[in-house]
Amino acid sequence: MTTSKQLFTLISNVGQLEISLKTVDVPQPKAHEVIVRIEAAPINPSDMWPMFGPANLAEAVLSEDKLTFSAPVNKGILPRIKSRLDQVLPIGNEGAGTVIAAGDSEAAQSLMGKTVAILTGGTYAQYCCVPVQACIVHKESTSAINAASSFVNPLTALGMVETMRMEGHTALVHTAAASSLGQMLNKICLAQDVSLVNIVRNQQQAEILKEIGATYICDSSSKTFKADLYQAINETGATLAFDAIGGGEIVSDILTAMEQSGSKDAVGFNTYGSESNKQVYIYGGLDFSPSILNRAYGMTWGIGGWLLMRFLAKLQPQQIVKLQQQVANEITTTFACTFTEELSFEQAMTPAIVLQYNAKKTGGKYLINPNKNL
Amino acid sequence: MTTSKQLFTLISNVGQLEISLKTVDVPQPKAHEVIVRIEAAPINPSDMWPMFGPANLAEAVLSEDKLTFSAPVNKGILPRIKSRLDQVLPIGNEGAGTVIAAGDSEAAQSLMGKTVAILTGGTYAQYCCVPVQACIVHKESTSAINAASSFVNPLTALGMVETMRMEGHTALVHTAAASSLGQMLNKICLAQDVSLVNIVRNQQQAEILKEIGATYICDSSSKTFKADLYQAINETGATLAFDAIGGGEIVSDILTAMEQSGSKDAVGFNTYGSESNKQVYIYGGLDFSPSILNRAYGMTWGIGGWLLMRFLAKLQPQQIVKLQQQVANEITTTFACTFTEELSFEQAMTPAIVLQYNAKKTGGKYLINPNKNL
Repeated sequence: MTTSKQLFTLISNVGQLEISLKTVDVPQPKAHEVIVRIEAAPINPSDMWPMFGPANLAEAVLSEDKLTFSAPVNKGILPRIKSRLDQVLPIGNEGAGTVIAAGDSEAAQSLMGKTVAILTGGTYAQYCCVPVQACIVHKESTSAINAASSFVNPLTALGMVETMRMEGHTALVHTAAASSLGQMLNKICLAQDVSLVNIVRNQQQAEILKEIGATYICDSSSKTFKADLYQAINETGATLAFDAIGGGEIVSDILTAMEQSGSKDAVGFNTYGSESNKQVYIYGGLDFSPSILNRAYGMTWGIGGWLLMRFLAKLQPQQIVKLQQQVANEITTTFACTFTEELSFEQAMTPAIVLQYNAKKTGGKYLINPNKNL
Repeated sequence: MTTSKQLFTLISNVGQLEISLKTVDVPQPKAHEVIVRIEAAPINPSDMWPMFGPANLAEAVLSEDKLTFSAPVNKGILPRIKSRLDQVLPIGNEGAGTVIAAGDSEAAQSLMGKTVAILTGGTYAQYCCVPVQACIVHKESTSAINAASSFVNPLTALGMVETMRMEGHTALVHTAAASSLGQMLNKICLAQDVSLVNIVRNQQQAEILKEIGATYICDSSSKTFKADLYQAINETGATLAFDAIGGGEIVSDILTAMEQSGSKDAVGFNTYGSESNKQVYIYGGLDFSPSILNRAYGMTWGIGGWLLMRFLAKLQPQQIVKLQQQVANEITTTFACTFTEELSFEQAMTPAIVLQYNAKKTGGKYLINPNKNL
């Protein structure tokens, strides 16, 4: 092996998206590096924007040689993504596979033949060359598919609970709570005895969470949603929420319920609301529409973005290692992730299939196996 | 003197606001307390909500004996202010006057005859009994009117610059920037060589700031506002803003400009935007309408409430003393505040005058002299 097939994305300055399958050279690993044959690379929601940007996927086509997927991009949007225009960029945040070559160092050699998970930003490739430190080493019994989602969802879920502790909160609220990530978060919170308020959008999602033992489930499609949310927040004392939705009034509804709970026994003016620090972190954007804030939560509240990489940058290296070891130990339990489809490169570039996985529906979970059908 | 006339507010559970002038006993000062004859108590924007709540002031009436001002409150709003219903509450956050009696302690005795400013929450009164520690002692040449606004505006303006330093920013954005507070902030920033981007709503306000030497002034009524704001933020490197407005898109516009500046040289996906921490604190609510966030500012941003009292609680006592001394030293320069109207209690309760000062227009600044015409 000296070459690798790999997916790249490009948006041109005339408004054309191209996802292309190219053949690239695989470098000789340096002393501290290993070559991983990627066998399972998830298509996460966080992969979609780098991959497709704002392209109109309903008008996508695959070239006859099956090497180029293309779709138009509205030119009016191009100024907003000017940093990436006309550049051929790798895609795929994470993945797992087998170490098939290693540099001379003892640490690198010790990984030969092992199943590892990596976070590189270019995992939609047959082979990746990465430093040893970028690997989570998995148990012999763990398959590449089991290990595929070792970083993004598990560390985000663990990061939410760590953030809760670091910022002095004692319970959590989570939206889009029946997602793979949301299910992991429930298992972590149950194991650590942390109260978690789950906000879902329908009864089917509520059932998924009930089955894994979730205590507080609020269905935002229910007529009693706001009352249910207040009651759950009031019972748990949650003053921190993580929101994957972003748009609409959900962030504001959560803060409003926190404030109502914090001020329920207030006497006098209470002009500035409860003194407890009420915080919502928005870590996803399932709803692109604007967030609407009624600001009926006094003066002690905050809303902000939350990003895994910027959270991890706040930790000591040994804290990160500890979290990664927990992921390896619990990858088939707490952090188990069920994939519904394993795609070849060609399938991942087929317009009808792209539309399916880009829909981000709960329960549909896709991965690419770069070595399938090649 | 054993009694004092004092204004109180009450909102009843049937939806009636009553501002009433009552006669109360003035206590004998304890060892560490002084009695201040209030000669000038500002009517700040922050006094309005405690005083009037959500009452419909257009339907207000003053009783024939001039002792009770009343106005209806929409019953639908009452649940939102239930903490204050049916309670007679004092009003007036700050004020200044002369110490006319003092407790036995040396500290209290040393204030006899001096002009002091106080922050009590009940300054719309002829006399206030307060601890020595609650006083800012002013120079002999400082009048009560000069000293009236020693706390709310000066410490808020100083607190903004302190917050900037504590949170690692190097320049500021401020909205409603031609307010008394905004003018103070300009003087502080000029003296401390801090770049300040002033957002105003019309050319008249821009002129006020030009006269005191403001460098960056953006008029939100201008067609070029967004481009002007971007340019000012880009030149100053401001990543922190204080907003007095709250509603509409101004908060989002500021963050958008900060992100555009932070990402102007970005290459590649830039999926999560600039890494600099972009923060807007909302400290007022001139516009009650919802805040609309487009969230086009990557993932490293925050919005939150900011409250003077909760900021001061983070400081060491000696830091607060230092800020207060600066206020006393510069009360007729940096922190000078021009009042346009001095009202008696009766005038402050006259419906037509209430409508004037409740309008919160730049340039109209009212105070109550509780000892006028009595």
